[in-house]
Amino acid sequence: MSKEITARSEDYSQWYNDLVLKGGLADYSAVRGCMVIKPHGFALWENMRDVLDKMFKDTGHQNAYFPLFIPKSFLSKEAAHVEGFAKECAVVTHYRLKNDPNGGGVVVDPEAKLEEELIVRPTSETIIWNTYKDWIQSYRDLPLLINQWANVVRWEMRTRLFLRTAEFLWQEGHTAHATAEEAIAETRQMLDIYAEFAEKYMALPVIKGVKSASERFAGAEDTYCIEALMQDGKALQAGTSHFLGQNFAKAFEVKFSNKENKQEYVWATSWGVSTRLVGALVMAHSDDQGLILPPRISPLQVVIVPIFKGDDQKKLIDDKVNEIIKELKAAGIRVKYDDSDNARPGWKFAEYEMKGVPVRIALGARDLENNVAEVARRDEKTKSSLSLDGLSGQIVQLLEDIQQNMYNKALAYRESHITPVNTWEEFEKVLDEKGGFVAAHWDGTPETEAAIKERTKATIRCIPLNNVQEAGTCILSGKPSKERVLFARAY
Amino acid sequence: MSKEITARSEDYSQWYNDLVLKGGLADYSAVRGCMVIKPHGFALWENMRDVLDKMFKDTGHQNAYFPLFIPKSFLSKEAAHVEGFAKECAVVTHYRLKNDPNGGGVVVDPEAKLEEELIVRPTSETIIWNTYKDWIQSYRDLPLLINQWANVVRWEMRTRLFLRTAEFLWQEGHTAHATAEEAIAETRQMLDIYAEFAEKYMALPVIKGVKSASERFAGAEDTYCIEALMQDGKALQAGTSHFLGQNFAKAFEVKFSNKENKQEYVWATSWGVSTRLVGALVMAHSDDQGLILPPRISPLQVVIVPIFKGDDQKKLIDDKVNEIIKELKAAGIRVKYDDSDNARPGWKFAEYEMKGVPVRIALGARDLENNVAEVARRDEKTKSSLSLDGLSGQIVQLLEDIQQNMYNKALAYRESHITPVNTWEEFEKVLDEKGGFVAAHWDGTPETEAAIKERTKATIRCIPLNNVQEAGTCILSGKPSKERVLFARAY
Repeated sequence: MSKEITARSEDYSQWYNDLVLKGGLADYSAVRGCMVIKPHGFALWENMRDVLDKMFKDTGHQNAYFPLFIPKSFLSKEAAHVEGFAKECAVVTHYRLKNDPNGGGVVVDPEAKLEEELIVRPTSETIIWNTYKDWIQSYRDLPLLINQWANVVRWEMRTRLFLRTAEFLWQEGHTAHATAEEAIAETRQMLDIYAEFAEKYMALPVIKGVKSASERFAGAEDTYCIEALMQDGKALQAGTSHFLGQNFAKAFEVKFSNKENKQEYVWATSWGVSTRLVGALVMAHSDDQGLILPPRISPLQVVIVPIFKGDDQKKLIDDKVNEIIKELKAAGIRVKYDDSDNARPGWKFAEYEMKGVPVRIALGARDLENNVAEVARRDEKTKSSLSLDGLSGQIVQLLEDIQQNMYNKALAYRESHITPVNTWEEFEKVLDEKGGFVAAHWDGTPETEAAIKERTKATIRCIPLNNVQEAGTCILSGKPSKERVLFARAY
Repeated sequence: MSKEITARSEDYSQWYNDLVLKGGLADYSAVRGCMVIKPHGFALWENMRDVLDKMFKDTGHQNAYFPLFIPKSFLSKEAAHVEGFAKECAVVTHYRLKNDPNGGGVVVDPEAKLEEELIVRPTSETIIWNTYKDWIQSYRDLPLLINQWANVVRWEMRTRLFLRTAEFLWQEGHTAHATAEEAIAETRQMLDIYAEFAEKYMALPVIKGVKSASERFAGAEDTYCIEALMQDGKALQAGTSHFLGQNFAKAFEVKFSNKENKQEYVWATSWGVSTRLVGALVMAHSDDQGLILPPRISPLQVVIVPIFKGDDQKKLIDDKVNEIIKELKAAGIRVKYDDSDNARPGWKFAEYEMKGVPVRIALGARDLENNVAEVARRDEKTKSSLSLDGLSGQIVQLLEDIQQNMYNKALAYRESHITPVNTWEEFEKVLDEKGGFVAAHWDGTPETEAAIKERTKATIRCIPLNNVQEAGTCILSGKPSKERVLFARAY
């Protein structure tokens, strides 16, 4: 298999697919719209999951696990919810196969038809709130702060590796509160956690905002989101946190007795991020040579490649590398020594570049004599010669530099791609020629929003939190507006 | 809700259900045969998962993720495999719901019928080997050592919380090798890892053995297993490791070119343990007061309860407890201070007993004066007064003692419940009156095995590894036998 990848400038979409496939993150599967997450991609997801999981637990959340299947009638209990998910769900109708009496292998056994069809969960609000009914009686049972790591299925018609797949992995938090204020505070807290995770760990700057009514989660009162910008100027929703009001409590009759011993409906939130984040990571940072992964979540942070002729040199290098590895591991660094003899150093360099390993150390016989190593950083593709004395300290610093540099670079790109416009002509021109977020006045109606989407494929990504209030006129309708919102074409 | 649980002597099966429900491990769900794993149960499973995951990674395995759905035709490709799983599988036939034109909510949209039905994975050999076809070309691609943590579905007709549920969580390892010897070595290595995990972490003694042909995994050449004994004398299969020969490689045409550049079929293994282990843990150790969890995997290892009158006493105790907690956490102990004011100490004691927390520390004003704490161990229900000086060291030791004591107790029970018998009368008598494993001669035929099962409900749990070779006659048929095998009634 050729390791050549398409250049971004040539075909951004193909570049992305090449990276995911050749960088060893994922593969297509035999099941329409479902992907195989390969070891390198899964290790990356595990690192992301572990950081998030700790952040959730540190804020008092506990993990639990709810059924994969949702009875069809549950989905229907919240009107907006079923409207949002019924059109793209996998439906289990039977529970047995049997041998084909006509000899055609196995067929569905018509006698094993379920009384009520089961939906493979597209999200778990309904099955969870049906359970919360039994768990919540009194204000003493609140807040209930639960998270679930799970697979979900949405039968998307147009799929893309990581970004939009029929099955994906995610976490979904589902919390229950005694008051609206508490639930809103939880919604905002989780949004802040997502933003902190994206910025500190993924090196991905995000804008925190709230969705317009048309872009809300099906069943939510308000959907908060973090929006990131990819290198082609398209936006990507990287996480959402929903204030669900009392909608699900009402649909599933979940009431609690308050301190005054009166029955009230419970207030809810839900929030989630998914394997889509892996796609965002790839698109935001990588280049035409392969992946560039942020050190804090990269499965491998440092790879060491020996350069040698003959066994004697190899032996000397091995001894030194063993020392270095010990030192790096003691500093908490994820390091690998690749001394396999089935590839030349140049091939290995290209391979680890493709896989996005942040730091590569090459060590040859002459380096040993000079007590140095050649250290290459993936993000800038610069090399330097570092002393072997106190190498681990220098590498720790270098990894921090790379993390910071990746964030700064992405931030600079994002900042230069938020463009305020005041007319429809400007709006279209910026979208077509420059991309990125376009900050424009909008009259606040779903009709205008839909018309803009229809004409340009741009959607309102969010109304930024703490937005500046500024009077203006809608770019399309000319009606009055009190603040700008961010439009973009998006993944 | 009453915290009373049924006594083991009264109704063992009800005792188990009470423990799982009232111990906060799991709950029934609205979906037939599926359970909700509650936070306490899930935290336990997470601890088990993390230990196993490290053991897998330390032996060179990597995690990956494969699709939830298996095309029906894939399941059919290995004859024994489809025979084993077709009769109890969830079948997805449609991908959309629509509004009922007759106003009855949402109904399956007949126009959204899948061309080929998808099976919710009962196990993933077929989808994985279909993928391995693309990943394996040469001996250089082998061994391929992959594990997956996932949910699977088997449409069991009679379900029990954790022990047998329609959906369960598990890990499934799927490895590919160049030779039969290597694959067998892998199968045995993973069996050893399971046994080590069960004994060292779950305090659960197990017998390593191989299954008879009738009890083999559908599609395996050999199934190795670990078998444990519950307190009611019934056996429980706690993990299996399969040598799959070239069966799946042949079904999916997975060949590699060997060092001589000749094409050969790949050799395979698969191995798995599931949330069933949580059930085994509960049944093996707990008592009529609640759960007893082994310290190494217990979500909480130590709970501290203050005993006080008035705020002044409380303040003094709080200060001391903060010191103790700091000390315990530094020693790596999972500890919680329960100073909530909505329950009396006695209620809290019962609650943590129910949840199986290994060590409880009670601290009162007089204890502080005497510089001691009252320390209760869950496994023996003994209390002692320990000096507050160097408390963490004493607690670390105590937790180790509890872990060891739990293992010894389970081992003593198991050892006293392996009974050799030589006649059919003895066989039935031991099964009915004593239970446990019965070591008996068997003529090696599936017919006799089936007849024994039919008459007694006992199955061959395993032929122990390194079994003593000893001539004898089959307890049922009287035909010659060269070794004893272990029979038992089982979960």
